[in-house]
Amino acid sequence: MKAVAFLLVAVASSLAFTPASSGHADEKATSNSGMTIPPGYRDWKLISVAHEAGGLNDIRAILGNDVAIKAYRGKELPFPDGTIIARLAWNYVPSEENNKVFGREQSFIAGPPTNVQFMVKDSRKYPATGGWGFAQFTDGKPINEAVSKTCFSCHEPARAADFVFTRYAP
Amino acid sequence: MKAVAFLLVAVASSLAFTPASSGHADEKATSNSGMTIPPGYRDWKLISVAHEAGGLNDIRAILGNDVAIKAYRGKELPFPDGTIIARLAWNYVPSEENNKVFGREQSFIAGPPTNVQFMVKDSRKYPATGGWGFAQFTDGKPINEAVSKTCFSCHEPARAADFVFTRYAP
Repeated sequence: MKAVAFLLVAVASSLAFTPASSGHADEKATSNSGMTIPPGYRDWKLISVAHEAGGLNDIRAILGNDVAIKAYRGKELPFPDGTIIARLAWNYVPSEENNKVFGREQSFIAGPPTNVQFMVKDSRKYPATGGWGFAQFTDGKPINEAVSKTCFSCHEPARAADFVFTRYAP
Repeated sequence: MKAVAFLLVAVASSLAFTPASSGHADEKATSNSGMTIPPGYRDWKLISVAHEAGGLNDIRAILGNDVAIKAYRGKELPFPDGTIIARLAWNYVPSEENNKVFGREQSFIAGPPTNVQFMVKDSRKYPATGGWGFAQFTDGKPINEAVSKTCFSCHEPARAADFVFTRYAP
């Protein structure tokens, strides 16, 4: 699998997070690798937004913890240990309410959530994957480990940006 | 003008904000009505995301100050005084880098910023517009006042949601 569906996915990890209290991933869950959902990620600051058409057909927000935001704004590369980047995604749905106001079919909004993905920088724990651990949770449940192992290969083209595709949106 | 381009726009106001230190609107600026840019809005929490196609052709994030986020999560209507909702928007651009990874033309990301809009709830200051003041800034400069006066009429269809179109994305 070329892992088209996963820009961020899970690799073996033993990070011990505690679950978030709300959002996409509000159940207590631990990935096969032991990674759990970072607490409070839904409150993190915005890095950028994107739309993936095709099979994914989602609209997404990329949030960062304070370490991530500081690194982005300071143009710090590679990202320091402690960086966590969260990708939230929702079904991409037309808004009839908005379209009525605009007078045309042009508005697309966030529908039900699909899944949430995390990249965690820990250069000692993840030396084989550029220093990054990856995880994905759907309804609070971690992704299948076999699928998750494809993640890093997808991120390799972004090596010059420390394997991170998303740029900070000012 | 049916104000298609502005879901949130400026009306007469005397709110005294100070400018944000970064982001879309990082210049010191005061709207014709006296409204200035809320400080630190780029650090606010995420409410939701959207894509407007057509003439706007932008991708956007809607952020809220703490009062706004608490009201959204608590399903509080009408929004209390002190609520501020920020709509940031960027040009909607394809990502060749991402498309290579996905193996197809499907990825759209945030390009250069377009403008930022604010809705401010102050029921005593804005009784004629549902309790909301509206403002828009482009490159830190406020929108033309004549255009800005069209804002509230566009928001009237959302009366049942206290004139706010955006729903919280979990």
